[in-house]
Amino acid sequence: MTYITSGKVLRVLLYICWMAESGVKQPLLTESLDVAPKTNQKINHRRRFRRCKSAPLAEFTPGELNGKDGSLPRSESIFNKLHPSIRKVAIFLFLYLAVGAFCFYIVRHQIAGERTDGVLDSVYFCIVTMTTVGYGDLVPNSVATKLLACVFVFSGMALVGLMLSRGADYLVEKQEVLLVKALNLRPKVGPTETTEEIETQKVSYKCATVFIFLLVLIVVGTAFLTIVEKLDIVDAFYCVCSTITTLGYGDKSFSTKAGRIFAIFWILMSTLCLAQFFLYIAELNTEKRRKELVRWVLTKPMTNVDLEAADLDDNGIVGAAEFVIYKLKEMGKISQEDISVVLEEFEYLDVDQSGTLSTSDISLAQSS
Amino acid sequence: MTYITSGKVLRVLLYICWMAESGVKQPLLTESLDVAPKTNQKINHRRRFRRCKSAPLAEFTPGELNGKDGSLPRSESIFNKLHPSIRKVAIFLFLYLAVGAFCFYIVRHQIAGERTDGVLDSVYFCIVTMTTVGYGDLVPNSVATKLLACVFVFSGMALVGLMLSRGADYLVEKQEVLLVKALNLRPKVGPTETTEEIETQKVSYKCATVFIFLLVLIVVGTAFLTIVEKLDIVDAFYCVCSTITTLGYGDKSFSTKAGRIFAIFWILMSTLCLAQFFLYIAELNTEKRRKELVRWVLTKPMTNVDLEAADLDDNGIVGAAEFVIYKLKEMGKISQEDISVVLEEFEYLDVDQSGTLSTSDISLAQSS
Repeated sequence: MTYITSGKVLRVLLYICWMAESGVKQPLLTESLDVAPKTNQKINHRRRFRRCKSAPLAEFTPGELNGKDGSLPRSESIFNKLHPSIRKVAIFLFLYLAVGAFCFYIVRHQIAGERTDGVLDSVYFCIVTMTTVGYGDLVPNSVATKLLACVFVFSGMALVGLMLSRGADYLVEKQEVLLVKALNLRPKVGPTETTEEIETQKVSYKCATVFIFLLVLIVVGTAFLTIVEKLDIVDAFYCVCSTITTLGYGDKSFSTKAGRIFAIFWILMSTLCLAQFFLYIAELNTEKRRKELVRWVLTKPMTNVDLEAADLDDNGIVGAAEFVIYKLKEMGKISQEDISVVLEEFEYLDVDQSGTLSTSDISLAQSS
Repeated sequence: MTYITSGKVLRVLLYICWMAESGVKQPLLTESLDVAPKTNQKINHRRRFRRCKSAPLAEFTPGELNGKDGSLPRSESIFNKLHPSIRKVAIFLFLYLAVGAFCFYIVRHQIAGERTDGVLDSVYFCIVTMTTVGYGDLVPNSVATKLLACVFVFSGMALVGLMLSRGADYLVEKQEVLLVKALNLRPKVGPTETTEEIETQKVSYKCATVFIFLLVLIVVGTAFLTIVEKLDIVDAFYCVCSTITTLGYGDKSFSTKAGRIFAIFWILMSTLCLAQFFLYIAELNTEKRRKELVRWVLTKPMTNVDLEAADLDDNGIVGAAEFVIYKLKEMGKISQEDISVVLEEFEYLDVDQSGTLSTSDISLAQSS
């Protein structure tokens, strides 16, 4: 964790706090850039180009496509206050565990191993299978249960994937905000701070949040195994490591009733937490490489050949927007395909075929 | 696999074959678009904008940053012919297994369970730990080995992550090309085919390739366990499923010498294969949602407010390039930050401050 300096973390904390308090939802970056020039005019000495300030990332929800969603009145229960993607994941998880527990409860006599309570064991077996920990303290010992376990491990993996892609990132962001509020920090974003830096810090801060949460889970798990399952401290730590990595040798596992109740929640949280941590590390690496590429593209000297290639409308000069497209393409941010698709739309909108869009094109389009 | 029609797969096969034969490396999309208009002029009836044809994704290698790499003479062994990222992964994997096997061989008397051969068991234990299968047929039973296993499972997970992010995708692409060559197919890319379609098909084709490879691995694994390890067919299939998902209950595992030699290669390949398959499924979903968003942004009617916001240089009219930037920003492809960074570079390059770049700016920059 050498790349996360405490200063960086603090600045991100402050930034996030400020975002949270000003009620900004999305997009964080666009808004903050609009604010920066106002607070410090000195940086702006050569800026002649306006920021296309009202072109944020379109707030797209599939519901808007048919225009039906949003008009429905909604009850204000806590469940409905949840983010839609979290709600979806929660429903899937509930269904998975309900169906899984039911199935394995029915065939509970065809599962060999250390038993505690019928329903509890079924749910515990579901969680151990779904997260692919697979201790082996409970194993299916009939053809039917073996095939059932195969079905549940594949669907469980898909569900874990869904959780990681939809829910986890959102929850980590929420946690950050809560943490900042608890620490009672106030915004002090410096004007010299570029949003690029903030974005990278955001990822490394998420990384740090998950890491702290993971450490807490490891400590709690080790303590629990020592106190409740009566394992010695090394065995407890070894069992914790073997569980969160989904290794699950199975020589040490949760064998008491209390242990299994704890395990249901703890295994799910800790395995997801470690997976999310690895995902953030990967994101940090990608971010770093992307920034190197951006720096390289920007410092590359411009030649006449580049100039000709960048000249989209073939008028001999390269405008600011043409230059932006050319460079972003070099950076791999956008592809020729992206440009072509939008250009086709442009040619369709350019009713008077002047090569530019103006208010006359808009009124012509509306009248026709 | 309902979304992959045989026609689609075939078209991608053809496309990939064509790319492979024409020797095109990167970027696939840019090149193919330049070719399309030449072969079919009819589509082009309203196209007034040139494709910035020589602005491909910059072929960036970190070595170019210091200008040292590439000048070194290299021996032409097979190992050196490998893609750099594959080579890196292979070195890491070799080091990991060498160090792991050595460590666990030293402490082999502190590992309990079914033994076959000292070195073989150490490598097998390494693979089972690294992929987080963790059967539990071999378990560490001293403090030192337990802590060693903890270290190796975390570093193994990181290594598997590296393999998935660097090597696997590249290998799948290679496989496709080989498959196409073996089937002796010839390119017949239709002119009506957009590159967007090709891109999506590329992902779904990769998905199909991995799926086929996974099926082969499942069949081979099941057959091997039935014949060599003398398991009945259901148990063999159950053991295969429990292994490739890294579940590893451990009631059924590889206990013979031949079985463990096979397991070393088979476990590594099959677990990576399934993980890669899930990654491709996720990529397909992202692609699908991205396309929905693009369609939504493009069909949204343009208003005077949009027009004003898109007008980057504030001259009252919106050029093609400005329109492209505005729409790509709405699609979330690029951020305000990306634009700002490039605009700063533009203002620096625009020596005569005309608001456009021309050959005079280039010569002024070179002379100064």
